[in-house]
Amino acid sequence: MILALAGGVGGAKLAKGLSEVLAPEELLIAVNTGDDFEHLGLHISPDLDTMMYTLAGINDPVQGWGIAGETWSFMQALETLGGETWFRLGDRDLATHIERTARLRAGHSLSAVTQHLCTQLNIAHRIAPMSDDSLRTIVHTSSGRLAFQDYFVRRRAEPAVTRIDFDGVGQARMSAALHAALGSTMLAAVIICPSNPYLSIAPILTVPGVRDALGQRRVPVIAVSPIVAGRALKGPAAKIMRELGAEPSSLAVAEFYRGLIDALVVDEADAELSAAIDALGMHAIVTRTVMHDLQSRTSLARTVVDSVQSLFPLATRRSAR
Amino acid sequence: MILALAGGVGGAKLAKGLSEVLAPEELLIAVNTGDDFEHLGLHISPDLDTMMYTLAGINDPVQGWGIAGETWSFMQALETLGGETWFRLGDRDLATHIERTARLRAGHSLSAVTQHLCTQLNIAHRIAPMSDDSLRTIVHTSSGRLAFQDYFVRRRAEPAVTRIDFDGVGQARMSAALHAALGSTMLAAVIICPSNPYLSIAPILTVPGVRDALGQRRVPVIAVSPIVAGRALKGPAAKIMRELGAEPSSLAVAEFYRGLIDALVVDEADAELSAAIDALGMHAIVTRTVMHDLQSRTSLARTVVDSVQSLFPLATRRSAR
Repeated sequence: MILALAGGVGGAKLAKGLSEVLAPEELLIAVNTGDDFEHLGLHISPDLDTMMYTLAGINDPVQGWGIAGETWSFMQALETLGGETWFRLGDRDLATHIERTARLRAGHSLSAVTQHLCTQLNIAHRIAPMSDDSLRTIVHTSSGRLAFQDYFVRRRAEPAVTRIDFDGVGQARMSAALHAALGSTMLAAVIICPSNPYLSIAPILTVPGVRDALGQRRVPVIAVSPIVAGRALKGPAAKIMRELGAEPSSLAVAEFYRGLIDALVVDEADAELSAAIDALGMHAIVTRTVMHDLQSRTSLARTVVDSVQSLFPLATRRSAR
Repeated sequence: MILALAGGVGGAKLAKGLSEVLAPEELLIAVNTGDDFEHLGLHISPDLDTMMYTLAGINDPVQGWGIAGETWSFMQALETLGGETWFRLGDRDLATHIERTARLRAGHSLSAVTQHLCTQLNIAHRIAPMSDDSLRTIVHTSSGRLAFQDYFVRRRAEPAVTRIDFDGVGQARMSAALHAALGSTMLAAVIICPSNPYLSIAPILTVPGVRDALGQRRVPVIAVSPIVAGRALKGPAAKIMRELGAEPSSLAVAEFYRGLIDALVVDEADAELSAAIDALGMHAIVTRTVMHDLQSRTSLARTVVDSVQSLFPLATRRSAR
């Protein structure tokens, strides 16, 4: 069984590929919920939604978020009523937020609600939040301390980031699925998807117990770099790296994950970084990482899964014992 | 100034007519909120919504409720997710419920929220809930004790009604606008719109203080019968009358309001009931009460307003002093 850690769009692309090459029981996708927030009285989980919509094949590939063929009557009416419209909520997407919120209020856990929504969307593979508790990403910026969506959507990631931390770390526990996967003798590898390391993966690593479990791991951890030729394929990862004093590159990603991962998958465009990455005590795996379509997602997923077996045959055998 | 008491569709039609013949400062429309309910985590006020949409001219005249040109993407998506779909919520309509709920949660009163929504919808005349507190209509039926929408929408008003009462009467207070209107020296008349007496007007009369204020009134109270030739123009009023042991007719409406009103406006089809209605100690005013279009609404509103002045010249003069 493989555990994938993922954030939104980039992570969902690889997760979709993994779902093509692994059977449902062979994969658990643990998703960042540091971006979750309450808006208009609704509990919104942007990364869980992107993951669900992508695996269900109903995601909007052009826009990069939300549901394909979405309509916007609600948003137009809300604007007429003077409501808050900076966070765009499509009519179909809204059903997810309302159903999730109603079920959470009825006492169900975020894990249980996610499982229910996945079942309704005919998603065979397992998607779980990193935690059922509130652990919120806070972005300290030139414009002050901002809640994640305030920084990311309302202010379009424009303020310079000085520091990132997380509210609620003390109380947060891993979700049952993530906890079980990390402790499972069936676990063969952990794959860190090409999501923003600072904003999407760091929150997962911050959930108490996750970093320790990975540190004591007996299975390989492989990350896929979200940076190609010094640029983020999506989102503000490169910009944030610069603001935090790092040169945006896959080498900086390797340094960010140093001590935590056994291999970093980088794009062919970054092949020249292999030696420097190897020098950090991990394998550099060079392949095509840009995922334009389902075929490239599946292909990258297969490369990553195959490299687990080729690079770490002992680990795989040990975990299978 | 005229105070109109109203429920949903039928009441909104006359209120729309009144808004055509009276200036904004000459009219307050106090609306039934006994039908309000929490659904999918949203505070829904069906009668306030119908009133707002009708006065704003955006109501759906064919369907009889909701917004014209509505779209249904949310409802379809909610059905896919296995959510509750028995109460139909259009995409545009949803904006009203979400904005209202968010503002109520932020601590605003239902009166303040209603005023805000009316301003955003460019409604010049004043619409106020009967109360900012929870006073809920409960329908006792052959299928047990049912919350209003459970009876009315989910079960399509099919179970036989044995009794109607109201939850929360002890705590409920009149809204400030209704209280001020009933106590105002500027009040010239109270008009009870052609809404269901049992389900739409009775809740308003049940708000502590309303019945007393009307009993001590120095101004005429005129009701418009929602029954024409033994049939309700809309909804289950005639059916409920029968179930409660009354022959559905404008005479039964007169009996229901006996002691409370000075005149009952009935349709030409019920002219033969005039003498029996007069015998109950009120004036029967015979005119066309069926409102198919804006002209008929305006015409009926003018007849009602004119009858205040012709039938009760002293009252009008006294209140104007």
